[in-house]
Amino acid sequence: DAPATKKTCVEQNLELSYGDRAELGNIHPLASKLLKIMEEKQSNLCVSADVTSSEELLQLAESLGPKICMLKTHVDILKDFTGAFSQKLQALAEKHDFLIFEDRKFADIGNTVKHQYEGGMYQISSWSHIVNAHAVPGPGVVKGLSAVGKPLGRGCLLIAQMSSQGSLATGEYTKAVLQMAEENSDFVIGFICGSKIAKRPEFIHMTPGVQMKAGGDLLGQQYTTPKEVIYNKGSDVIIVGRGVLEASDRLEAAESYRKSGWDAYTKRVTQSGQ
Amino acid sequence: DAPATKKTCVEQNLELSYGDRAELGNIHPLASKLLKIMEEKQSNLCVSADVTSSEELLQLAESLGPKICMLKTHVDILKDFTGAFSQKLQALAEKHDFLIFEDRKFADIGNTVKHQYEGGMYQISSWSHIVNAHAVPGPGVVKGLSAVGKPLGRGCLLIAQMSSQGSLATGEYTKAVLQMAEENSDFVIGFICGSKIAKRPEFIHMTPGVQMKAGGDLLGQQYTTPKEVIYNKGSDVIIVGRGVLEASDRLEAAESYRKSGWDAYTKRVTQSGQ
Repeated sequence: DAPATKKTCVEQNLELSYGDRAELGNIHPLASKLLKIMEEKQSNLCVSADVTSSEELLQLAESLGPKICMLKTHVDILKDFTGAFSQKLQALAEKHDFLIFEDRKFADIGNTVKHQYEGGMYQISSWSHIVNAHAVPGPGVVKGLSAVGKPLGRGCLLIAQMSSQGSLATGEYTKAVLQMAEENSDFVIGFICGSKIAKRPEFIHMTPGVQMKAGGDLLGQQYTTPKEVIYNKGSDVIIVGRGVLEASDRLEAAESYRKSGWDAYTKRVTQSGQ
Repeated sequence: DAPATKKTCVEQNLELSYGDRAELGNIHPLASKLLKIMEEKQSNLCVSADVTSSEELLQLAESLGPKICMLKTHVDILKDFTGAFSQKLQALAEKHDFLIFEDRKFADIGNTVKHQYEGGMYQISSWSHIVNAHAVPGPGVVKGLSAVGKPLGRGCLLIAQMSSQGSLATGEYTKAVLQMAEENSDFVIGFICGSKIAKRPEFIHMTPGVQMKAGGDLLGQQYTTPKEVIYNKGSDVIIVGRGVLEASDRLEAAESYRKSGWDAYTKRVTQSGQ
């Protein structure tokens, strides 16, 4: 008699590559674009350009552009913002193939964030591919932003967790953010978070507070390493600010973070398939 | 024999007047100033100047100034902000004796909000008496703002509840906000909230989403009346935006809200003493 076939049921934790995820049927075009950039440039590094001079920010974009998938800005700390600056920044994003993410953390009622996103001095919606929002006002904040950003092909990240000490974005709060994202996935492309919180591979997870060594600052910021964030916590993008900006050689530091983040990703994806 | 003395123990819900609270030993100087203005002008009305032109905002401040205790701004929706504008606004606040409250809803880590409050195009700390913040990043957000604002005599409101549908600022979140305020009462002067949440009479409660008729907008905003907010919910200040701005006669509307808010307060204070 032929022996009974042994059926091995291994639950495979199949992990799609960034490139595979870019091709998913339901993916938001902007998320797809980002994932393609990441795959092509072998970079899951977003540099946080927390500088106060437009000129310095443009220099950063020009020199670090080839290393990053995304540049994160705080336009409201620039002492000399102009419309010409935002045009130059867009040109550099085009030239070096990265996305611009204005870290505005919108957190007001829908009617107000609509104006804040579209209008004022900064006209954020006109130049920033991605913005983020806190979920604390309820779904109206996403509806308001979406009314402005969706027709322009923009995307939004919801802040599901924060890297700062004593953050209230935990537990039930984080769950509510996840639900809000799922209900608005025509505009919400992912999360600011400490670890992977959504199973849908269409969502992108981005983690701030990354440095080569764990630690913190005097105002409650807490740091984690690229490997911890990408390999252990399953996030997609590392956001690095002071780790690059305070380095004596910013380009070298950016390359070092790019490599760490990419190695951690490669290891994760490779192991998941074994 | 003499009859035993009857001792009546009535728990008195003694309510201090705005003027009495202004004189409390532990009160923050800015909260004291606000309460004195409210008492003198018989106004617990804060108008939300949600307009997009500096000129229109200054006209509002000039015409409604005598009716209000505070003017709330969203400086980042003005299409033509200049340093000269903020100086003119300060002069009008001085002339008509009201405080300026920039409704920025700071919501980032301490190191970032420090820059956002002090720097950039708007230099908010240089002209706004009061700002507000979300507690979601944890206590670092207050520490960062305080590092800039405390030396200038500024004050901060923490957002404990929101008027928008589905807000996550409820329950345990609101309790955590209250605790954060108590631990930072050298800079936090009160709350944005729907009802009185703190017993300490040094804290000021301010409630947005006020209109003469209850209702809502299409982006999740929900409205309550002045009487409900001040008399039933025990808040101190009504914040009125569209109820005044969309009126055919804004001055008349402001006077009507001032009177409603003040009458509700008078009734509350009078009844508590009976």
